[in-house]
Amino acid sequence: MKVLASASDTYWLIDQLRTQGKRIGLVPTMGALHQGHLSLVQRAKEQTDVAVVTIFVNPTQFGPNEDFQKYPRTLQSDIEQLESCGCDLVFTPTNQQMYPLGHSTFIEPPSVAKDWEGKIRPGHFRGVATIVMKLFQIIPAHVGYFGRKDYQQVAVIRAMARDLNLPILIQACETIRETDGLAMSSRNRYLSPSQRARALGLSKALKMGQTLIDQGCTSGQTIEDAMRIELTKAPVDSIDYAAVVHPDTLEPVESIDGPVVGIIAARIGNTRLIDNATFIRG
Amino acid sequence: MKVLASASDTYWLIDQLRTQGKRIGLVPTMGALHQGHLSLVQRAKEQTDVAVVTIFVNPTQFGPNEDFQKYPRTLQSDIEQLESCGCDLVFTPTNQQMYPLGHSTFIEPPSVAKDWEGKIRPGHFRGVATIVMKLFQIIPAHVGYFGRKDYQQVAVIRAMARDLNLPILIQACETIRETDGLAMSSRNRYLSPSQRARALGLSKALKMGQTLIDQGCTSGQTIEDAMRIELTKAPVDSIDYAAVVHPDTLEPVESIDGPVVGIIAARIGNTRLIDNATFIRG
Repeated sequence: MKVLASASDTYWLIDQLRTQGKRIGLVPTMGALHQGHLSLVQRAKEQTDVAVVTIFVNPTQFGPNEDFQKYPRTLQSDIEQLESCGCDLVFTPTNQQMYPLGHSTFIEPPSVAKDWEGKIRPGHFRGVATIVMKLFQIIPAHVGYFGRKDYQQVAVIRAMARDLNLPILIQACETIRETDGLAMSSRNRYLSPSQRARALGLSKALKMGQTLIDQGCTSGQTIEDAMRIELTKAPVDSIDYAAVVHPDTLEPVESIDGPVVGIIAARIGNTRLIDNATFIRG
Repeated sequence: MKVLASASDTYWLIDQLRTQGKRIGLVPTMGALHQGHLSLVQRAKEQTDVAVVTIFVNPTQFGPNEDFQKYPRTLQSDIEQLESCGCDLVFTPTNQQMYPLGHSTFIEPPSVAKDWEGKIRPGHFRGVATIVMKLFQIIPAHVGYFGRKDYQQVAVIRAMARDLNLPILIQACETIRETDGLAMSSRNRYLSPSQRARALGLSKALKMGQTLIDQGCTSGQTIEDAMRIELTKAPVDSIDYAAVVHPDTLEPVESIDGPVVGIIAARIGNTRLIDNATFIRG
């Protein structure tokens, strides 16, 4: 496994591999890798010839009062995990490499970025879209792999790829969960044991949503109310949103007559967690 | 020469050519081709293996009160000219192809887009940067060719390419002029014969700027004043700006001690013309 920090060396290598007819799979990450990330690498290995992982804690997607400084950085362990799951290339740039003095071009993200995370974290998707665009240029991959846990992020990147004609297929991969249901997240390591127990509220609320669908409920509002009750029982400390939305537009669905997605963001102590589930009528 | 209207067919073909080791040169245009455009194609043919021209009058770079509707469209003649100068591929998409319903991702252009054209034509460089980014994705070229006549546009595209790590070399090519000095522009065809004579004010003003430099003048302000006098003598009907700026930052230069660029935008009747010249001490 090669580990490169230079954007130009990385582009050069990938371009060579493409000229040799190799198909490239890209997994952009912020490090602090867990089983969710590794499942994306696995998928890339299955579907393409060269699995590339990027590790970069992107400052432009964090708000001024968010956890950029304390975001977990575990590069040595990340690299070991990637090595043992057969990753071919890791790109680990510095801030200076990605945002040199004078950098001032950004992506104005698509309309699907407006609500939910976009509203609560102003500028977040502008930062995400910009870094992902940059990584797509440095590593011109055939397929990009993203975790469905960040549901809106995947929608934003898909819309960006469509709108800007990016020649890459965006693959959303299933959320990987702990055995008790907690969605894996680098931020889970912020949780104390008692907070960890309360964090189960998110996946429980989503399970409740599916249960109501199974029982024939067609009211988005009823499911939202039920999810909020579950979250309050956990208890989480605050709910940023709990909603039932259209899978593509992410607009709230009042009367359910097709697949919908339950999306949740809640805070436990200083930790902000998100989760989602696609609700399907059986 | 192939003429394609489909983005995916075009990408597929270019990708094939790249895999064969061919170097691709791209000349994005809005059609209404003149000798200036053809000189870019010539350059692409000299420096790369495959010369690609795009023809698309990009609606998002025109303001609501600008000349999008009446912008000259001369596709048949454009294609004939491209054929006879040895262009390999022409991409001529429709508005619907480039901006289908729901398109909502844009490029927020770099800081060099802020002044001059950016101030007078709000949103112009956002539209330019967005369409150029899209074309760079559809036609992943090794070199992109742009006319220096649109000096700030080249600076914007260069900064965008640098900031977003676009794997393309941006080549700025010399402004092609009529024998009397008028910079070639698709908009020149809007001019009546008497307006055409007055339009010479722009190139005359720039010549005056170089004359002052030759005489040892080091004051940006003095040169600006002299350029404005030339423009007023022409006369042009109004001056949007006439300035002496740094070649990279496009910031006004008060005390000249290196190469600077004279930039001018002026109106003659309903026609807005721009021109520029790099002033070099002999």
